[in-house]
Amino acid sequence: MSQEQRITPRGEDFSEWYNDVIMRAQLADYSPVRGCMVVRPWGFRIWELMQGALDGMFKATGHENAYFPLFIPQSFLAREAEHVEGFAKEAALVTHTRLKATGEGGARAVVVDPASALEEPLVVRPTSETIIYAMLSKWVQSYRDLPMKLNQWSNVVRWEMRTRLFLRTTEFLWQEGHTVHATEAEAETEARTILGLYRTFMEEWIALPVITGVKTDAEKFAGAVRTYALEGLMQDNKGLQAGTSHFLGQNFAKAFDTKFQTERGAMEYVWSTSWGVSWRLIGALIMTHGDDLGVVVPPRVAPREVVIVPIWKSDADREQVLAVASRLQETLVSAGRRVELDQREGMKPGAKYYEWEGRGVPVRLEVGPKDVEKGQAVLARRTGGKAPVALDGIHAAVTAALADIQRCLLEAARERREANSERGVTKARLVEYMEGGGGFAYGGFCGRSECEAAVKAETKATIRLLPDEEFRSDPAPTTCAWCGGPASVEAVWARAY
Amino acid sequence: MSQEQRITPRGEDFSEWYNDVIMRAQLADYSPVRGCMVVRPWGFRIWELMQGALDGMFKATGHENAYFPLFIPQSFLAREAEHVEGFAKEAALVTHTRLKATGEGGARAVVVDPASALEEPLVVRPTSETIIYAMLSKWVQSYRDLPMKLNQWSNVVRWEMRTRLFLRTTEFLWQEGHTVHATEAEAETEARTILGLYRTFMEEWIALPVITGVKTDAEKFAGAVRTYALEGLMQDNKGLQAGTSHFLGQNFAKAFDTKFQTERGAMEYVWSTSWGVSWRLIGALIMTHGDDLGVVVPPRVAPREVVIVPIWKSDADREQVLAVASRLQETLVSAGRRVELDQREGMKPGAKYYEWEGRGVPVRLEVGPKDVEKGQAVLARRTGGKAPVALDGIHAAVTAALADIQRCLLEAARERREANSERGVTKARLVEYMEGGGGFAYGGFCGRSECEAAVKAETKATIRLLPDEEFRSDPAPTTCAWCGGPASVEAVWARAY
Repeated sequence: MSQEQRITPRGEDFSEWYNDVIMRAQLADYSPVRGCMVVRPWGFRIWELMQGALDGMFKATGHENAYFPLFIPQSFLAREAEHVEGFAKEAALVTHTRLKATGEGGARAVVVDPASALEEPLVVRPTSETIIYAMLSKWVQSYRDLPMKLNQWSNVVRWEMRTRLFLRTTEFLWQEGHTVHATEAEAETEARTILGLYRTFMEEWIALPVITGVKTDAEKFAGAVRTYALEGLMQDNKGLQAGTSHFLGQNFAKAFDTKFQTERGAMEYVWSTSWGVSWRLIGALIMTHGDDLGVVVPPRVAPREVVIVPIWKSDADREQVLAVASRLQETLVSAGRRVELDQREGMKPGAKYYEWEGRGVPVRLEVGPKDVEKGQAVLARRTGGKAPVALDGIHAAVTAALADIQRCLLEAARERREANSERGVTKARLVEYMEGGGGFAYGGFCGRSECEAAVKAETKATIRLLPDEEFRSDPAPTTCAWCGGPASVEAVWARAY
Repeated sequence: MSQEQRITPRGEDFSEWYNDVIMRAQLADYSPVRGCMVVRPWGFRIWELMQGALDGMFKATGHENAYFPLFIPQSFLAREAEHVEGFAKEAALVTHTRLKATGEGGARAVVVDPASALEEPLVVRPTSETIIYAMLSKWVQSYRDLPMKLNQWSNVVRWEMRTRLFLRTTEFLWQEGHTVHATEAEAETEARTILGLYRTFMEEWIALPVITGVKTDAEKFAGAVRTYALEGLMQDNKGLQAGTSHFLGQNFAKAFDTKFQTERGAMEYVWSTSWGVSWRLIGALIMTHGDDLGVVVPPRVAPREVVIVPIWKSDADREQVLAVASRLQETLVSAGRRVELDQREGMKPGAKYYEWEGRGVPVRLEVGPKDVEKGQAVLARRTGGKAPVALDGIHAAVTAALADIQRCLLEAARERREANSERGVTKARLVEYMEGGGGFAYGGFCGRSECEAAVKAETKATIRLLPDEEFRSDPAPTTCAWCGGPASVEAVWARAY
């Protein structure tokens, strides 16, 4: 089965490697519906653990979950001009509501019943701003109702021609936060707060180091005043947008007439934000940590943090080893660890190691007859290295190893990113750098869309973001990397997913 | 706002009462999309707590979550003949994938781009058997792959003409379990196990007493061999199907060619089950426990189990009372309780009581200057009764009160159901009983669909289920309540949602 499939080495074909490791780990599969994928239990459990962590962070910062309709009347989408512009070309449209049978026997088929046409077609939500603002206009009356900070976990649909598992699929799962505030400053603070929350999550949970900043107008969300973004660098030196947080100003408030009465009795439009991350983060995780053996899942989001592989030859050994392995499992589970005891019969330990490595389990504990004798297990890390550990107090050793793996994954990814970032690029260097495989290229930018478009056309690299202060070069670049004119900001270019 | 709206008394118009309490509690709202509702944070939190409990129970019994596409090619639905029959008339169909702009300025509009028609229309999933079996056929190869026990939390769409909040909406959230097994007996056991699991959940978490049994062929799931169901009795004496668990036999396995190699090397079709519950359970909760003041939420699924209302007149009181109330909140939160401290200014305690009663919070703690003096709080139950409780050790008293409320809600609902159930009904009594307001009517049934249809036509009551042994009458009825012929089984009739 899939365990037997060869994994294409990263160096040979990164894109093939990516698909291979997903299949090997049984994270996901292609579906018979074009553009849609199936997330299998191993992949979905990673998503659940991500969801749990993020959801806790949202709630701790005063957000509440709600649920809005899947369908949006097509006229709603049109109310915010830039918004419809952005989503019209990839809209899944529900136009009819009934099937009818035709033919008999073998020729029997069902077809759309033309008599069931809807008066106004419905768009399967590509994002929910429009339907949410239609409701907010009803719910928000006074300054006392503000801020209102909502979040929704849902599926969205954007019709895609070229799809890639987790990264670009017609349907995907995500969360979308939507908040409305009484003042511009408060909405701006919210957008930045979420950016920070996302960064904490990405770094601490999925060991994905990101740079943060603001998008150029050409790259911002359709309908936003400003889009803040988080960008990671994958092992093939392509950038990946890991999340965005938008300051929407009063754009949607005006389109949907969402007003509130101020303390002084005046009527004002609300100020708002929206922000989201999707299961694309699983793609980021794979491309950040995976190796030629398969995926490597950071412990905090690993479906199993530990797999115990018992080893025996004789029946007598078997009984003794399994007894110790079971107790070991109990010990670790009661210490709060997620643990699999792989006691499948008729499968050699080596084959089990191979399978669990492919699935990315961070820690493997091997228990054989000699280990039982010595009161130990052998602890092997998915990231390399193995050593015996005394069974007595092993939960502390395992917990420490997991924390260390988590930290080392982030550290290694950050070092790789820095090794593949170049500062102060000139036009010639930018071209050469992108042709040579790329990475993050920092350089001055004059701010003109002509330069932005020219870089994209000639190097296939886009401005991923205008970095936040923490990530900026010192001294700041003074000339535009492309035109040589005065730089108004610093930009980070990369080819990207 | 909605707090000010009058709640229609149950006795006056149950249906109006139902809508009123949902609005008052801000559980949900109507959306501008016909047939679709919005679930507001208070309602969604109840759903999340239900989800958490059920999900834990599914995982503890070896089920894993996965995610399958929202869209199903229309030809898939047609493969299982009864299945398509059941869902063709309420299918939301995606036929196009692009909008285009027409007109200019004020006349600007977007319309479906006819050039974007799909070759094969897609059905927005009404349930996922067909797409899941298409995948299982690929994943299941050998008896070693069995059983495979999957669950999915998702939205589904069934086009509805007459909608009712939570009970019947075009889109709804649910979970759908899908399992495949090597033997018929194992699949049958699974279907019954889930029925038991659902019952435990409904009784222990939402205090909804249910009777269980099997559906008649006329009422079973489209594509099932047998449908097991759980039925509750609402306060208006209508039955409500709270969940179903289907034994699918090999119907879908044959339609999608899902086979496995047995230990002996033969190829056999898998045996399967599917089962689901939806946010309709929130409707069941409302109609089981609500009263003329609003909803009553059982503590285990209450967004807030406790609300603390501080009471003060002078500023000096205020400070002291708030300090005590804050400490009280901390104490309860660290004991694991979900607690709101309502310190809104400019709102009288009575108005706060009224609001939290409408929202159904099980326990209210009032803390005024005199209570502070006496080292106590006044504990008021949403279900009636209030008494002072010493602050010292109050978390134990609160936890005990919550457990007691939870138990009493179930008990009261069970008593009400029994008081509104009648056994051994004859034809005349069945007609009279249903006309007089109804309830559960137990009677003999000959098993003929003619009788089943006639009862429905003349009394508007349907056979909710053929009850499991535990619920059957003793002695068993010997004649059919309708035709007077020999009874083959006992049936439970009711008018239903």
